[in-house]
Amino acid sequence: MSKANVGLIGLAVMGENLVLNIESRGFSVAVFNRTTSKVTKFVEGRGKDKNIVGCLSMEEFVSSLEKPRKIILLVKAGAPVDVMIDKLVPLLDKGDIIFDGGNSFFKDTERREAQLAEKGIKFIGSGISGGEEGALKGPSIMPGGPKDAYEAFEPILTQIAAKTDDGPCVTYVGPRGAGHFVKMVHNGIEYGDMELIAESYNLMHHAGLSAGEMAKIFEKWNEGVLSSYLIEITAKVLAYNDPDTGKALVDVILDKAGQKGTGRWTSQMGLELGVPIPTIDAAVCARTISSYKDLRVQASKILKGPAAKKIDDVDKLMDALHDALYASKIISYAQGLALIKTASDEYDYNVNLAEMARIWKGGCIIRAQLLDKIKQAFVKNPDLPNLLFSPDFAEVVNASQDKCRYVVRIAKEMGIPMQAFNASLDYFDALRSERLPANMIQGLRDFFGAHTYQRVDKEGVFHTEWMEVYGG
Amino acid sequence: MSKANVGLIGLAVMGENLVLNIESRGFSVAVFNRTTSKVTKFVEGRGKDKNIVGCLSMEEFVSSLEKPRKIILLVKAGAPVDVMIDKLVPLLDKGDIIFDGGNSFFKDTERREAQLAEKGIKFIGSGISGGEEGALKGPSIMPGGPKDAYEAFEPILTQIAAKTDDGPCVTYVGPRGAGHFVKMVHNGIEYGDMELIAESYNLMHHAGLSAGEMAKIFEKWNEGVLSSYLIEITAKVLAYNDPDTGKALVDVILDKAGQKGTGRWTSQMGLELGVPIPTIDAAVCARTISSYKDLRVQASKILKGPAAKKIDDVDKLMDALHDALYASKIISYAQGLALIKTASDEYDYNVNLAEMARIWKGGCIIRAQLLDKIKQAFVKNPDLPNLLFSPDFAEVVNASQDKCRYVVRIAKEMGIPMQAFNASLDYFDALRSERLPANMIQGLRDFFGAHTYQRVDKEGVFHTEWMEVYGG
Repeated sequence: MSKANVGLIGLAVMGENLVLNIESRGFSVAVFNRTTSKVTKFVEGRGKDKNIVGCLSMEEFVSSLEKPRKIILLVKAGAPVDVMIDKLVPLLDKGDIIFDGGNSFFKDTERREAQLAEKGIKFIGSGISGGEEGALKGPSIMPGGPKDAYEAFEPILTQIAAKTDDGPCVTYVGPRGAGHFVKMVHNGIEYGDMELIAESYNLMHHAGLSAGEMAKIFEKWNEGVLSSYLIEITAKVLAYNDPDTGKALVDVILDKAGQKGTGRWTSQMGLELGVPIPTIDAAVCARTISSYKDLRVQASKILKGPAAKKIDDVDKLMDALHDALYASKIISYAQGLALIKTASDEYDYNVNLAEMARIWKGGCIIRAQLLDKIKQAFVKNPDLPNLLFSPDFAEVVNASQDKCRYVVRIAKEMGIPMQAFNASLDYFDALRSERLPANMIQGLRDFFGAHTYQRVDKEGVFHTEWMEVYGG
Repeated sequence: MSKANVGLIGLAVMGENLVLNIESRGFSVAVFNRTTSKVTKFVEGRGKDKNIVGCLSMEEFVSSLEKPRKIILLVKAGAPVDVMIDKLVPLLDKGDIIFDGGNSFFKDTERREAQLAEKGIKFIGSGISGGEEGALKGPSIMPGGPKDAYEAFEPILTQIAAKTDDGPCVTYVGPRGAGHFVKMVHNGIEYGDMELIAESYNLMHHAGLSAGEMAKIFEKWNEGVLSSYLIEITAKVLAYNDPDTGKALVDVILDKAGQKGTGRWTSQMGLELGVPIPTIDAAVCARTISSYKDLRVQASKILKGPAAKKIDDVDKLMDALHDALYASKIISYAQGLALIKTASDEYDYNVNLAEMARIWKGGCIIRAQLLDKIKQAFVKNPDLPNLLFSPDFAEVVNASQDKCRYVVRIAKEMGIPMQAFNASLDYFDALRSERLPANMIQGLRDFFGAHTYQRVDKEGVFHTEWMEVYGG
């Protein structure tokens, strides 16, 4: 019997769909799952009559693969990945490749890659975005690890990835944890996008629009510069009526947002690397506040908002909101890409930002027209210090900033929290401030802690003897 | 020769001042420093003719102390603390106490306490706030560790701490890392306070006020509800003219804020524990953005702000700013105290929030009239779910919210970033939102990732088969 081209461990829906995707491109796939009944169920069900070999033991699985073995792990991030690697390693030969396609934290990937390299086993840590549908039909794939291991996998990856006019949505991201770092930031950007959409929805809601009316607005927005998967499905979610109650489904969904951790990791890495990503931070924070539902219900009885305000010109507000959403989104991407750039420099990942934007154009949750423009900006100038320095994007945000101010002003007057919109505008205003009031902070720090300060008019480090000036 | 009551290692200015403070209260102090020339310099200089024993070796230092030995470490946080502990331990006896008075990360303190407990040595991790002046004249002290070790130190601590009408600014915070956790959040709150002041200063600056005019405003504010050390020294910094140029010193200080990490740790712990602290996050982020001075100078040439706007009624704006600053500060404290509460529950620290507010009333950088009111709020109701639920504070923020909206609106219209003010107002508006738009986020997550959602009208976990609804 001929050996399978590739193996996959972890038959949850994502895993099953990825296997079906790979098999449909002409590759044979061996599959294994810790709970082996899933293997049987899959090969007798969705995997029936296909070039898929179900294996009921790890030994059988490993021996069924052609060498060098190519093994995709799609198990829960964290300890389960280490458990599976520990079981696999004694069965593998030097040169075999393990490909972790889960949402692993990039520092875990760095550790695993180094440990496996000592044993002669190659390790790829790869982001895969696109959800269940993407896994089946073509995801965006962000692999990092040894270049030669990537090249061994490349024929499969380019086949199974989403395709755009710009090629398959996969590329070699960089060494070690580069792939998982980029996927983490991709998810952080996704948090920002979703929060900006949710805040827009909230403003529309308080402006008196029904879910059906909002659906039409998002549908229309999806035809312009905002065209993207998330705007498209926002319209679809809003348009759907709950069969049980006949109400718009969105109105009966509980307002507590879940999170699985990649957004929080992005904020943590922003802090660790000293890169400001306030829009993403605001998105993470907003999800957290939403989870305190009971506290909010109590607070709503104690804390008072402004007097009710009626929006006189809803069309004007929606027009401004459209432009503000687009500008706020661009500003959020500028932050996320700056984080990747800094990490790339810090960890020697050598990430090509134009290529990242290109492979996000299809397959993944944040796929959007905007990404082509971002790609162009970095093709034109790979060393762009910040996305907003690109003349095209500078023009857009410069032209939209008055509308951003208008939207957040209305929201503030109505008592509606729009943390992500505010964070984007504040980032924009801070970034373009030749002078920020940090001189006051330095003055205070020097006063109480002798932390010293620099001056604008000469080099050096200075300290004022405040006790001598004012007595102590 | 009689033995010294207490020893101190680390003769930087803080250490020297703390030794002089302790000695002035009638205790004898042995001192040691890695660079021993500092020991000689100190005992022949500031420490001359006092009950201070300079030791030129660790052995001499340890043997000069009465038992159980009480040793204060004031060395740089991080590895130097471990190095010093490793050198000390072989020389110590069971029951001796090491007191780390630096800004150690509380998780390091937890680790050290456990490791030393195995050896029978007691470890106190203590925040000390007040800067150099506080160390000399009376700081606020936040010690955590074994209760009996605290009690052994208590006679010294109550003597050297700052005194208020409410007793000495020291209390037993809790076991293990509790003291350093509380000190970390104290510093995070301090970041928030300073950023709010800096943003106020920036708004005043753009409203056309001179440093001298601002100094007078802050002086006046220091006589009312804002009365605090930081407002007092803000006025002093603003009033001081640079001897070299004759200009206000604040105008020649470079606008790049430094940070030593405790603010960032606070943000990281907010993320880790799932407690929203957006005002503190904004303060940390603002310092980081300020550090990108070159980028900002470039950006200022590319990115455009709104048309110049003249403030018609500066007095009205200053009146609103006063109330907005006070409300934003209260909201920031609500966040920080919620973080301590959650950590206290999570780590079984059993922290008394009323006592924390009490020991912050004197000695430390954030000392303020406000802290007495916070103490009262927690004395009245130790289980207050959030500071803003206290009727007194609810009344203040409810009454000030319109002024908060006015101030940030003006700032947005003028293109002035006021991240911390915005974050406080957004936190207030989010907290008092019985319904937030997280339902939209959950709808999207269920659409693309089958993450499921809860409903407002019935118990359970639900999923919509979106592919069946819309095709896939």
